[in-house]
Amino acid sequence: MDEVERRIHRSCTRFLSGHQPAPPHETLRALAERPESGEADQYGVGGPVAILEQRVARLLEKPAAIFFAKGMAAQLAVLKLRETEAMNPRVVIHPLSHMDCDEGGMLERVGGLQPIRLGQQRHFSRAQLHSLAERPAAVVLELPLRRAGYLLPDWDELLALAQWCRETGVPLHLDGARLWEAATHYGRAPAEIAALADSVYVSFYKGLGGIGGAAVAASAETVTALGPWRNRLGANLYAAYPMALSALDGLDRNLPRMGEFAARCAELCSRLQRIDNILLNPASPQGNACQILFRAEPADVTAAHLALAHARGVWLFNRIGPSALTDWTMAELVIGTASDHWRMDEGETWIRELNAKLRR
Amino acid sequence: MDEVERRIHRSCTRFLSGHQPAPPHETLRALAERPESGEADQYGVGGPVAILEQRVARLLEKPAAIFFAKGMAAQLAVLKLRETEAMNPRVVIHPLSHMDCDEGGMLERVGGLQPIRLGQQRHFSRAQLHSLAERPAAVVLELPLRRAGYLLPDWDELLALAQWCRETGVPLHLDGARLWEAATHYGRAPAEIAALADSVYVSFYKGLGGIGGAAVAASAETVTALGPWRNRLGANLYAAYPMALSALDGLDRNLPRMGEFAARCAELCSRLQRIDNILLNPASPQGNACQILFRAEPADVTAAHLALAHARGVWLFNRIGPSALTDWTMAELVIGTASDHWRMDEGETWIRELNAKLRR
Repeated sequence: MDEVERRIHRSCTRFLSGHQPAPPHETLRALAERPESGEADQYGVGGPVAILEQRVARLLEKPAAIFFAKGMAAQLAVLKLRETEAMNPRVVIHPLSHMDCDEGGMLERVGGLQPIRLGQQRHFSRAQLHSLAERPAAVVLELPLRRAGYLLPDWDELLALAQWCRETGVPLHLDGARLWEAATHYGRAPAEIAALADSVYVSFYKGLGGIGGAAVAASAETVTALGPWRNRLGANLYAAYPMALSALDGLDRNLPRMGEFAARCAELCSRLQRIDNILLNPASPQGNACQILFRAEPADVTAAHLALAHARGVWLFNRIGPSALTDWTMAELVIGTASDHWRMDEGETWIRELNAKLRR
Repeated sequence: MDEVERRIHRSCTRFLSGHQPAPPHETLRALAERPESGEADQYGVGGPVAILEQRVARLLEKPAAIFFAKGMAAQLAVLKLRETEAMNPRVVIHPLSHMDCDEGGMLERVGGLQPIRLGQQRHFSRAQLHSLAERPAAVVLELPLRRAGYLLPDWDELLALAQWCRETGVPLHLDGARLWEAATHYGRAPAEIAALADSVYVSFYKGLGGIGGAAVAASAETVTALGPWRNRLGANLYAAYPMALSALDGLDRNLPRMGEFAARCAELCSRLQRIDNILLNPASPQGNACQILFRAEPADVTAAHLALAHARGVWLFNRIGPSALTDWTMAELVIGTASDHWRMDEGETWIRELNAKLRR
């Protein structure tokens, strides 16, 4: 967002997507009230960070978990570990994954890894893994795959992928930035998904609504070995308690609401399906998020979105951009606590208004 | 610190070194009161982060500054930039620098750089730079050099080093984690030191007492080019306002006190010089910190230190370890706000007590 966009965003009071924004002073005061706020961590040792690590390990039913200030570093740490163990720099990733789309080439330019890009608009399959010409040091699965419309593989497909990894002895790593949301869609506990993988990264903002930070849950041996990589990759802060406290808050407040957010997303989408010149991807959202496609150019959708925000004080989408269909533009719908502040008919009306403004 | 040490540390009420610890709830409440706490940054854009970047640029009289969640990433970003510009992976660092001693081999194992290690127990000289067999892409100078007793080059030596860089066209980067403290020793404004270098990294905890975070000040072109590296190295957080607010607080509260801290350090050291079996390195501290050497084994100093902390409720040192003299152990003395809570004669007495407990 540029300065004009940020000014309009600040002037809005209601938000279709994401969590209801709170000014820092409110968030900081709320965190100060948490029972864990009596002690600071020191470089990630002790205090709220230790409590959070234990809680994540328990929640995912893994032997241990380790906090990282940044998810990108958490995942690179896992892959560097797997590379070292296998003496093999090749890792399977999806070309639509965060790792490939949003990290500035971190895997190659920082990690020195050699990604094998597998899959197209959907998750790669067991058959595609099976037909790999070269053995990878790890397979990474992003659940859900955000840029494919927050897409999840069917549960059986997921089991098949995990089974291939187990049978071939290739470690499976889950990019579970939105694992909590995925668990809701599968109707299974996060631990049931985590059980399929050797390591799981989870994020504390996004669905949980925290200030930031991430963790990797895995075997005790893996978590111990990640320690030096956390340091080496600059993801061990002098003090991380604000992030850790907000993560604990997110686990308390937002984790139990994931089903509610998904239900609201489904209801809104079922209303949107009737509107001309709107497509949904996927047609039925898997969890609390999906893509809404408008038949217009990205620049026109962005302009109409800003005009509506300015006129109505309502901010609809945090990401608008090209879609996989040339003549259509994608806007991400993600349901969070902001949806406490509007009714379904209001949400539908706002999107209808935006759609009506578009030059086609 | 292990769990026992942390329990004893928590039970202490007075601290010889560093800043007086505050529980997170106090710190968070204080940050919520700051005038900049009305707006959050989004991935480092806007809010307190933008205000902090502008303030650092102004303070260091550089065209621009960019916030990083982690100093290690900030410095690696600068060096990756210099490597790319010069198509040369060689960088001059000191073997006693943070980069070489405390980063788990980040430069080589993450950055793929080829450090040229120059200097021994003191700063490298212009003559040593001049006699390099290979041209480096950058020269890094840590001011002060912590592991050499927070040592600074004389001002004239510093000018000569900077002059060599300017004449040869090799960019000079300052590791100014403690630049604020160094400026006090030189009796010069931070900007006068910054003017000698192409890029300056400064830290917001340490002397400033913030929660964490760092910035690099440099030309507008360099700062722009650091943006993608900040992302790629995982140092751009979803929201960094707690760190940024605490950095602003540190600039308000602690920066003006650097001279006071240095004077207290000098006074305490002049008292310690009279004690048998204690050495100071350097003999006169340069700024607010130095090493105190005890004639004993590290394990004995550590044990005596813990026993004293337990008995007296006073924690003296945050780092104890081997010194450059085989039969002596080093403890770091760093004066901060914790010194508001003891008198000079008390500080002297505590160190005398520790010294008397030692098995030699």
